Amino acid sequence: MSRKVAIIGVGFAKFGERWDKGLRDLALEAGTAAIADAKIGGEDVDAGYVGNMAGGSLVGQEHLGSLLADQLGLLPKPITRVEAACASGGLALRQGYMAVASGIHDIVVVGGVEKMTDLSTAQVAEILGGAGDQEWELFMGATFPALYAMLARAYMEKFGATEESLAHVAVKNHKHAVNVPYAQYRKEISVEQVLNSKEVASPLKILDCSPITDGAAAVVLAPLDVASSYTDKPVEIIASAQATDTISLHDRESLVELKAAKVASQNAYKQADITPKDVDVAEVHDCFTIAEILAIEDLGFFKKGEGYKAAQEGLTAIGGEIPINTSGGLKAAGHPVGATGVKQAAEITLQLRGEATGRQVKDAEIGLTHNIGGSGGTAAIHIMKRV
Amino acid sequence: MSRKVAIIGVGFAKFGERWDKGLRDLALEAGTAAIADAKIGGEDVDAGYVGNMAGGSLVGQEHLGSLLADQLGLLPKPITRVEAACASGGLALRQGYMAVASGIHDIVVVGGVEKMTDLSTAQVAEILGGAGDQEWELFMGATFPALYAMLARAYMEKFGATEESLAHVAVKNHKHAVNVPYAQYRKEISVEQVLNSKEVASPLKILDCSPITDGAAAVVLAPLDVASSYTDKPVEIIASAQATDTISLHDRESLVELKAAKVASQNAYKQADITPKDVDVAEVHDCFTIAEILAIEDLGFFKKGEGYKAAQEGLTAIGGEIPINTSGGLKAAGHPVGATGVKQAAEITLQLRGEATGRQVKDAEIGLTHNIGGSGGTAAIHIMKRV
Repeated sequence: MSRKVAIIGVGFAKFGERWDKGLRDLALEAGTAAIADAKIGGEDVDAGYVGNMAGGSLVGQEHLGSLLADQLGLLPKPITRVEAACASGGLALRQGYMAVASGIHDIVVVGGVEKMTDLSTAQVAEILGGAGDQEWELFMGATFPALYAMLARAYMEKFGATEESLAHVAVKNHKHAVNVPYAQYRKEISVEQVLNSKEVASPLKILDCSPITDGAAAVVLAPLDVASSYTDKPVEIIASAQATDTISLHDRESLVELKAAKVASQNAYKQADITPKDVDVAEVHDCFTIAEILAIEDLGFFKKGEGYKAAQEGLTAIGGEIPINTSGGLKAAGHPVGATGVKQAAEITLQLRGEATGRQVKDAEIGLTHNIGGSGGTAAIHIMKRV
Repeated sequence: MSRKVAIIGVGFAKFGERWDKGLRDLALEAGTAAIADAKIGGEDVDAGYVGNMAGGSLVGQEHLGSLLADQLGLLPKPITRVEAACASGGLALRQGYMAVASGIHDIVVVGGVEKMTDLSTAQVAEILGGAGDQEWELFMGATFPALYAMLARAYMEKFGATEESLAHVAVKNHKHAVNVPYAQYRKEISVEQVLNSKEVASPLKILDCSPITDGAAAVVLAPLDVASSYTDKPVEIIASAQATDTISLHDRESLVELKAAKVASQNAYKQADITPKDVDVAEVHDCFTIAEILAIEDLGFFKKGEGYKAAQEGLTAIGGEIPINTSGGLKAAGHPVGATGVKQAAEITLQLRGEATGRQVKDAEIGLTHNIGGSGGTAAIHIMKRV
């Protein structure tokens, strides 16, 4: 019999170009903030999980479990690094959830961290290419903007979406980020600015792409039945699901959906015993503007082929039908890859607590996170509920 | 209430310089062998974990969960990569154990893989340095042979062990490997050969060091109560423990023990309700000869300061008091870092099934695996029992 699990604390290390901080500093910043928010001490922590995609390639540092147990004063507790490219954070959260749900551990810290700005953009693009099929995609020159550009072209061709449809996603997410303290870009942009920005991989322009970001985020998990002794506002994780798909695009049946996200979300809705209509707010994986459009369709918020109209019509803005990416998403809050899935959970927690100052979704009771690895090879979906 | 967990299948990809095979080929070789050994099909697998240290740096490939789900025909099942340097395999096994014990998944494949020989020795040494403290050790030039050389010097100084004491560990493990089909070096060496081999970091010579190896290993886990429907010889995992220590040597209280291994093994003995004397056979992490000496003391097989005599006196050979590393250990079987912890579990399974041809420990009932990350920053200990 599995136990119910709650989030009792959240913390962030500001996202951005943190040239004065190393990987360990960022993890420490977020981890200590989450532990303080949960009103516990390090001695209360039983175990931890950390999502990180490419510490080895980006800064020469693997073995983050030991490093962070050491830095955070958690020795000799077991801390485990989990990696699934840009879904590393989501899978770390899922491992933490499983550890508490199973009764193996009680208080578990889940963190995500990535230090990305020490290298050139070209170097980072090559390293991120390791999230796809190194032998059949990256080796042939297909970096991630190119892979998502293919998804965008397929979608536009099939459903009549335009470059302007994509641009509206970026505009909406930048608008949301203005009030997000931890966001990398807290400024609005216009559709014209997106359309006139430098082309990266047609039809994607630089303002369709999430940036290269240093950052970290952390949450503290506890069994729900004791959560109220730590916080007045526990947030329950009512579903945790994970699915895989082919790592390379050329093996997919369809290029206008991410099947892993569909499979995982259907599993998650079943676990939570809800339908997509019950979700009040969601953080989705908008590594590129097209990715948010696929996400809101794969999650069942909009019909396949109609999601591209949502941002333009204001349906996914705060105050709209289903507010998407109140954090600013990967696009404007930034995308420290290993941290993103954990940041999503931390943002939803703030929303469900009613503490998302300046971007609060009114009466938010149920929130969802959608975290994707690579071009859709891994999907991690979590659903949270205000208790 | 947690379920009992059994190993119902094992598989190996031969360890060595596999220049004709890539990372995915090695994983496929071991994974399909383990699935076949368990007499199941891919459709029976509910989830998987894979240990890999540095696919990103070594071959440009991260996101192994998706890649291997795809390669092994397991889509859309959740497969998760776990990393803890050279203890990646041990932690993958622990996550798989937790997934089955908790009732979250039933049939779980646990693999470990590393493809290391595509780069130069110097490049690999730098990448492996990421298992230690990149900023305070590797950056200063302390690669792993240097770190373990410091441990060896401290031990020799304190307890009177000699370079010859160390050499006996290598000689014993090479002798064991002669009958191990998957081992990299199936030939005996002499104490003189070790002592006269090229110095790497004094007092460690090349024949004190585990080699650079391509390889993979896999095991299939199932709930014990259904294990007998798959195999006549299920092996129960009666303990799974993990602990951390400081990632860097300079922060340790002692240089003549690995504290994480002591903490984790004491926890494991408690879970299994046994003492070190009850263990019939063990695979320990002999990345360098000194590491095996520390291991057999940390595990309680020998008193602190006396373990260095064991190999010379034949106590840790097959037929001795407590046979250590019947596989040849990391030294002679080879050390594909992410695979090592899983290979240890697979070797112990063969021993407890009575199938360790040419190296069988008579009447082996209880076996132990000891897998270390870095210079001791992570330790994973598992204890298995013949059912």
